[in-house]
Amino acid sequence: MAVGTSSGIPSTPLHKDEVDIVIPTIRNLDFLEMWRPFFQPYHLIIVQDGDPRKTISVPDGFDYELYNRNDINRILGPKAACISFNDSSCRCFGYLVSKKKYVFTIDDDCFVAKDPSGKEINAPDQHIKNLLSPSTPFFFNTLYDPYREDYDAPTQLVKPHERNTRYVDAVITVPKGALFPLCGMNLAFNRELIGPAMYFGLVGGSQPIGQYDDMWAGWCVKVICDHLGLGVKTGLPYIWHSKASNPLANLKKEYHGIHWQEEVIPFFQAVSLPKKCTTARECYAELSKQVKEKLGKVDAYFNKLADAMVTWIEAWDELNPSEKLSNVSAK
Amino acid sequence: MAVGTSSGIPSTPLHKDEVDIVIPTIRNLDFLEMWRPFFQPYHLIIVQDGDPRKTISVPDGFDYELYNRNDINRILGPKAACISFNDSSCRCFGYLVSKKKYVFTIDDDCFVAKDPSGKEINAPDQHIKNLLSPSTPFFFNTLYDPYREDYDAPTQLVKPHERNTRYVDAVITVPKGALFPLCGMNLAFNRELIGPAMYFGLVGGSQPIGQYDDMWAGWCVKVICDHLGLGVKTGLPYIWHSKASNPLANLKKEYHGIHWQEEVIPFFQAVSLPKKCTTARECYAELSKQVKEKLGKVDAYFNKLADAMVTWIEAWDELNPSEKLSNVSAK
Repeated sequence: MAVGTSSGIPSTPLHKDEVDIVIPTIRNLDFLEMWRPFFQPYHLIIVQDGDPRKTISVPDGFDYELYNRNDINRILGPKAACISFNDSSCRCFGYLVSKKKYVFTIDDDCFVAKDPSGKEINAPDQHIKNLLSPSTPFFFNTLYDPYREDYDAPTQLVKPHERNTRYVDAVITVPKGALFPLCGMNLAFNRELIGPAMYFGLVGGSQPIGQYDDMWAGWCVKVICDHLGLGVKTGLPYIWHSKASNPLANLKKEYHGIHWQEEVIPFFQAVSLPKKCTTARECYAELSKQVKEKLGKVDAYFNKLADAMVTWIEAWDELNPSEKLSNVSAK
Repeated sequence: MAVGTSSGIPSTPLHKDEVDIVIPTIRNLDFLEMWRPFFQPYHLIIVQDGDPRKTISVPDGFDYELYNRNDINRILGPKAACISFNDSSCRCFGYLVSKKKYVFTIDDDCFVAKDPSGKEINAPDQHIKNLLSPSTPFFFNTLYDPYREDYDAPTQLVKPHERNTRYVDAVITVPKGALFPLCGMNLAFNRELIGPAMYFGLVGGSQPIGQYDDMWAGWCVKVICDHLGLGVKTGLPYIWHSKASNPLANLKKEYHGIHWQEEVIPFFQAVSLPKKCTTARECYAELSKQVKEKLGKVDAYFNKLADAMVTWIEAWDELNPSEKLSNVSAK
């Protein structure tokens, strides 16, 4: 027996007394040998599927309890009917009998993977970190997990211009209904589909706000894409930004934006566009009205911005007359 | 002049006649030298910010048009008021005058980044690929972009058990309102918060459906998390799945699920839970009623499943009496 003494066991398994590992199986659990360094500190709940007369062997040194179908029937009586048989979904019986705060469940044909550097991935450790750090369901974070150790929320707050050097090899669609922070310095779009809504607003110079040009455009574009059934993606490609800007000067520019976004984001989260608006141009004209009506009372700046949105559409029509005609003729 | 002849230029720039690159700037565009292999095939629209008397130099060999503030005023007249001044958001003037289908915009302090293998990243190429492939705004894809070349949709359809070997170093919150495909074989959850909803249903054995146990649990859990303001994350950790299952056998198991999910997913997308449901247990009991009412007519199986959901809650209460009491006493 070598419980807790193997040199391969991480010295500080996270929350080991608050986690059960639930494993559905029909065979001997030899797969646990590979997981020993990561699983051995935790308690295992093994749910045996199939013939209860079969004996399942568990490698030495693990702390476990095992339930077969006879156990399930005995413990639940007629209620055992809700636990599937001959299917790995019988695992959920383990959730019922667990007395822990967290459950991690894994199949017996799953093995330890390696990260690109060749290091073995400690799955329970990562899962528990995921469960312990907050999530962000109300806004899509384009830097993925803002609570990740290498780029945590306090760091973002006190070092807003800190550089993220991690390379995430993915392109992701921002789901319908979720807003996100658009960045204008590395952006591509289909001008035919969404161009009339890609207006960067009135900022800088003599305006009371700077920097929020792309955020504003992104929120307008996203609610219009959601209405029109168009997609918005984030992720690759990366570019290298050699920042010339001054964080204190930026804070001054962003001051009103940071203040106003407490009203602006809920406005966009609640925007509803009428069905008759079927082009980006029509949606944007409608949105300008709602901006004036709902955000004008936040600050007079939004009245000016709403007027500029209308002027932008007029300028778009003037410089793109064929689009206007094709929109009209399509009605 | 070396337009299109530099050996560094990719041989097939994507959609080069349908893309404009828009660059706002206040200085000489030396940064284009680094981008030459990737930008030179495309037309550039340069929007000069600040003092229009200043002359901006553009490296030889690029195909471009340049507008300063005098040009903007001349072209737009009084409507020029909608284009910001002394701010990079003046870039949107470039969107107005472009005649192309796609726009890529980038700042003049952004340079070519490298991927982890040291290869220079062709930003316009990746952006155009993003624009050309479909997006998935109505369902959160846990494999990120299903249209990526190394794992495209047809491959998924004809090889549903194909292995994804790409390592994406990210944890992402699935936004509120978006459903996703939960996988039961590598799952962790907070049993105290959501345990009573993590029921894997009636599948396998004598049931008319297999394999959808985790998908079903995921959809139930997600609508309940959305209602309760709880988060759901996807991404790390990776595990290595040594698959033992047979694709044809799986297709048979999944047959009804594939058919029924056309009704089941819209059901979950439309689910609304009453405010009085403030725990996972209460939400799940309510959900079981809605399953019976709305999905019972799809197939009698869902009546049986709804009854099993109730039995599950009863079993949960029986085996976790303290939770039930604490829920009651908290009212």
